[in-house]
Amino acid sequence: MAQEEVQNGGAEKVAAVKFTAVKPQLMVEAPKAVDAVQFYKSAFGAVEVGRTVHPKRKAEQELPHILSAQLELAGSIILVSDIAENSTPVKTDGGGCVLCLETEDVKAAVDKAVSAGGVAVGEITEDDGACCGGLVGKVKDPYGYVWAICSPAKKCDDVKA
Amino acid sequence: MAQEEVQNGGAEKVAAVKFTAVKPQLMVEAPKAVDAVQFYKSAFGAVEVGRTVHPKRKAEQELPHILSAQLELAGSIILVSDIAENSTPVKTDGGGCVLCLETEDVKAAVDKAVSAGGVAVGEITEDDGACCGGLVGKVKDPYGYVWAICSPAKKCDDVKA
Repeated sequence: MAQEEVQNGGAEKVAAVKFTAVKPQLMVEAPKAVDAVQFYKSAFGAVEVGRTVHPKRKAEQELPHILSAQLELAGSIILVSDIAENSTPVKTDGGGCVLCLETEDVKAAVDKAVSAGGVAVGEITEDDGACCGGLVGKVKDPYGYVWAICSPAKKCDDVKA
Repeated sequence: MAQEEVQNGGAEKVAAVKFTAVKPQLMVEAPKAVDAVQFYKSAFGAVEVGRTVHPKRKAEQELPHILSAQLELAGSIILVSDIAENSTPVKTDGGGCVLCLETEDVKAAVDKAVSAGGVAVGEITEDDGACCGGLVGKVKDPYGYVWAICSPAKKCDDVKA
């Protein structure tokens, strides 16, 4: 694995960024996330441990846009989110899976990913969506996957569906 | 959440299937998985803990098709696989992320997922790829995501890159 050795020089910079969790976020065409959550419960026995809905839509519509439902499955957390024009953190090409990567130092992590060849998608913003508040920066990797690098999901445990 | 109550009747059947792990599998156009692995190391500090290559291609080509590279990231495992015509367990529409779900009872899990509204993709087969051997059955959920339901990845720890 000669390529591993070539890039060992970057190891020290990487060590400065600690990630605390990686969570697949399944983007679903709005407003089907509510159905998708039900499916993952029925099909796989997933347990919903939290849900964050769009604060403005909540009162107006019967089925609020789900910014993020947090499902526990096989000891891991997966997120299910409605894709909507202006409420979700990341709109991928034709839906798809976003990988949420949690860290205390969002900016350093985004910078490092970009320096490694990723492409930043927009700016780092304050977000109250998938990652339960805090900063979120998005990076598209050279293979088409979007990584949502965000603050740790501290508030998730308080949001019960 | 009226919909939760409606489907509570299925809870006992779900309880019979235990899942031991869920792992996002990033499908990458062959033969770029080797580069993708390097990127995830450089960008996020991922650590490769195992790699399974296509046994027949190994001797023939300089860059063997990666059936599955197992990367540890933030305490979780993600898988990176080359998409190839005849060697990878799942070819998704235009690449994408597959969710590997490990269980001792692949058939019961596939049946349950299908009864919940998923669509089986092919038959349950013996596989030496992403899941490190054992059975694998694929189910496409109603939202377009492919779940690879497979035997627990017992051999992964023995495969060092």
